[in-house]
Amino acid sequence: MNSLDLFRDIEPQLEKVEQELVRAITTEISLLKEASVHLVKAGGKRLRPAFVLLSGSFYSSSLDGLIPLAVALELVHMATLVHDDVIDNSFTRRGQKTVKACWGNRVSLYSGNYILAKSLSLIAAYERPDIIDILATVSMKVCEGEIIQMLSCFDVGQGYKDYLRRIERKTALLMSLSCQTGALVGGAPADKVTVLRRFGYYLGMAFQITDDVLDFVASEEVLGKPVGSDIRQGIITLPALYALREGKDSQLLASILCSPERCKNEAEDAIDMVLSSGGIDYALKVACSYAEKARSLLKSLPDVPARNVLDRIAEFVVTRDF
Amino acid sequence: MNSLDLFRDIEPQLEKVEQELVRAITTEISLLKEASVHLVKAGGKRLRPAFVLLSGSFYSSSLDGLIPLAVALELVHMATLVHDDVIDNSFTRRGQKTVKACWGNRVSLYSGNYILAKSLSLIAAYERPDIIDILATVSMKVCEGEIIQMLSCFDVGQGYKDYLRRIERKTALLMSLSCQTGALVGGAPADKVTVLRRFGYYLGMAFQITDDVLDFVASEEVLGKPVGSDIRQGIITLPALYALREGKDSQLLASILCSPERCKNEAEDAIDMVLSSGGIDYALKVACSYAEKARSLLKSLPDVPARNVLDRIAEFVVTRDF
Repeated sequence: MNSLDLFRDIEPQLEKVEQELVRAITTEISLLKEASVHLVKAGGKRLRPAFVLLSGSFYSSSLDGLIPLAVALELVHMATLVHDDVIDNSFTRRGQKTVKACWGNRVSLYSGNYILAKSLSLIAAYERPDIIDILATVSMKVCEGEIIQMLSCFDVGQGYKDYLRRIERKTALLMSLSCQTGALVGGAPADKVTVLRRFGYYLGMAFQITDDVLDFVASEEVLGKPVGSDIRQGIITLPALYALREGKDSQLLASILCSPERCKNEAEDAIDMVLSSGGIDYALKVACSYAEKARSLLKSLPDVPARNVLDRIAEFVVTRDF
Repeated sequence: MNSLDLFRDIEPQLEKVEQELVRAITTEISLLKEASVHLVKAGGKRLRPAFVLLSGSFYSSSLDGLIPLAVALELVHMATLVHDDVIDNSFTRRGQKTVKACWGNRVSLYSGNYILAKSLSLIAAYERPDIIDILATVSMKVCEGEIIQMLSCFDVGQGYKDYLRRIERKTALLMSLSCQTGALVGGAPADKVTVLRRFGYYLGMAFQITDDVLDFVASEEVLGKPVGSDIRQGIITLPALYALREGKDSQLLASILCSPERCKNEAEDAIDMVLSSGGIDYALKVACSYAEKARSLLKSLPDVPARNVLDRIAEFVVTRDF
């Protein structure tokens, strides 16, 4: 099974999201349009649009009204990617050239800002100040998360809580926002909006933890980047944190992970120490417990097809390609 | 006279804007707070807050309700500056170290995004989707303007219209937005909102043209950067465009301005050619005609103190320090 199979029920709507993504970024400035279209065509799993559509479908029979929101949240996500590429000096992403590689920093930064503004314009059309407020709050926290991640690099003294707080801001909050705002636009009652918001949060936590596990155990082909790229950059994720605490080589591992130089040169050794520590199993257990929390929340929602799909997504997130 | 004298009537409110600017960017992430406070403390003329307050005062007796909007629009402006510093690799601005110089690109980019999100949150609290929509539209055009400016560098074939379109997006639209949204929040009737929007637009055009003139004629001390920095970067402004069309050395000037290399090495010569062409007088005449348009619009507004202040600002913009 791959993630696309899960979205079969909302395929026509996701197809429309794809069309609207291209339409949304149309501008008379051809270079800006080219860069933005490049960004859209580079693809992605369109998880956030899917969560908007699925969460919105519990209390709304037509999904068409959710499409601008789905497009807007994917644009926000894309903007963070194109900004990241500027900062991280990345020339490829998902095996394709980045906007930065093709057109440089200025075009990357401003095409990011342009699509952020466009997403705001799409959301403004709902005339829902509550949604704008949620978006603003989450955006602030995401920026905070970027700074926290930067500060935590090579910090072998950080705890599990630091890690969880970081991935919350990096991933879980935007997934949570997608579910929450989808539910709001779809007319869900307040208590069910809360359920879907929390579902998105737990799912996002499970998703990021398993992503961090994949960075250790997947092939370069699946990842679209070298195995262990987190370690190489000094980003200490849950499997490594476990190894730092429980692994038999924890002292040696700490001496590598606190040094930018050694993280690059001795990444393979560090990866082996993490793998042999049981850190992968531990991280997957934590991910599963988040996924379980997410799934149990679904029980209080109406029994519509989306409920089953969301349940299967939560299951899939912790069982993909290990 | 300096610009601060003009704002004496709204001094207490501008003082409050200053306090709220610092309060707005408070975050538990101390590095992010430090960077944002550094940005606020670096100062600026606070023109946009002043326009919000003045435009809002025509139909509203209390200005307190305008302060979050004034703060939000200054934050938007500051975000564009901190992003520009990343792209332009600038280590000083207004004689002070930039956020980039102190903390690097990552902190600059994300503190810019953070304060953009904060400004959105402040504006969301007004529960005015029309204002969000105006902000989104202007933000998109500002991004387009950045790309247009980039593409127009070293392009000696560009016309006056290209220049005007560029400065509209670079400066006039955000000033126009400040006046328009100030009027909206201040409860002005629709036709007066339009008057104030157009006032801000014309004033912004006059302001940017005189700024571009100052880059040729002011001292390095006044500018806070070397004289002729536009020419050195290949940015062709109105005085240079006039010289390219009407100056006696127009061919030679064109051969310099189309070459990045020669723009750097022969900037002094190019500046002399622009000065001797009459381009400064021409540009000032255009600026004056925009300022006149702005001033004449004021006649249709109620005779409150703000009207006189706005009139004096429009006069000041085209008579400052030449």
